[in-house]
Amino acid sequence: MQNNNQNIKSEVRKTKEAILNQNAKVIWFTGLSGAGKTTISVLLEQKLLKQGFICNVIDGDIIRHKLNKDLGFSENDRLENIRRIAEISKMFLETGVITINAFVSPTEKIRNVAKEIIGENDFLEIFINSSIEVCENRDVKGLYKKAREGKISDFTGITSPYENPKNPFLEVRTDILSIEQSVEIIIKNILPLIKKD
Amino acid sequence: MQNNNQNIKSEVRKTKEAILNQNAKVIWFTGLSGAGKTTISVLLEQKLLKQGFICNVIDGDIIRHKLNKDLGFSENDRLENIRRIAEISKMFLETGVITINAFVSPTEKIRNVAKEIIGENDFLEIFINSSIEVCENRDVKGLYKKAREGKISDFTGITSPYENPKNPFLEVRTDILSIEQSVEIIIKNILPLIKKD
Repeated sequence: MQNNNQNIKSEVRKTKEAILNQNAKVIWFTGLSGAGKTTISVLLEQKLLKQGFICNVIDGDIIRHKLNKDLGFSENDRLENIRRIAEISKMFLETGVITINAFVSPTEKIRNVAKEIIGENDFLEIFINSSIEVCENRDVKGLYKKAREGKISDFTGITSPYENPKNPFLEVRTDILSIEQSVEIIIKNILPLIKKD
Repeated sequence: MQNNNQNIKSEVRKTKEAILNQNAKVIWFTGLSGAGKTTISVLLEQKLLKQGFICNVIDGDIIRHKLNKDLGFSENDRLENIRRIAEISKMFLETGVITINAFVSPTEKIRNVAKEIIGENDFLEIFINSSIEVCENRDVKGLYKKAREGKISDFTGITSPYENPKNPFLEVRTDILSIEQSVEIIIKNILPLIKKD
């Protein structure tokens, strides 16, 4: 659990957080494709917005069609993908905005790149954990089928590894809980950190 | 003058702008190195912050050391640099945040890339205009000297062209006005656009 909130913050960031009446954090969802990261991100943003919190969802699928459309799925490109996202998240942090990031981010190495750029105290790693069987059964985007057929190389969980986070801020079992339940648990855990005293 | 404010905005953006009590815009400073873009950006952000506006400065020099450290100064790399910045600015727009962008952005083509991604109604092009002689005389970073000595290739104003904006939202003559005066004129012109009715 990362409850240490003694960040070294810039004065400008502090002023913006005061106006926004919130503490900026990066909520980083990691997990297999189909585990529910995007769905949870969107619902979480909606619920936080209703409470007056200003967030920004940065979603892996969208980012790859826009900002990072020049990148593929090799290990180097995955690292560059995450490096850029982390730099952008830091820009949002400096503006006082909470970012909700939904990225498979399959390895410890990749997540550490993000954590180092963002800063440990602002990086809330949440493991959206669903078994590969459940994810593959859902297969909303038909990606698992394509990966099994060899039409996608380097597909996490099938042809490239997913390393479970060792010490996440929070783990949410989306193969047991509903999306609503999952979001409630997340809100309960992050509220003490993003809420101003 | 871009006074048409009938953007097609997402519902989420509208909600965020309502909470922030501001209309998000991208304030895009273009001009020669040494014209005062960065200095004006920082002061403008400070003054707007005092009035409760949430802004984010995206500065060319800083971006090139962090997010876009993989890019050089060839025409393609300059375009990619601006493309990414424009995509990021759009993310801030969607979050309801005003961005203040300080980029030489020397050609019509480059600025059009930004304008197309950001959307014409949200893109406020401000020409920070100082004569090349004044900029070269100041030469705060010693870059003009290096460019004259041939140590920097593709240096705008010396070895690569700067095309004056044809129809900017605003032009500010920083070789005539002080920084304070420049910022006052900018605020006077953008306030009607960023202020909620």
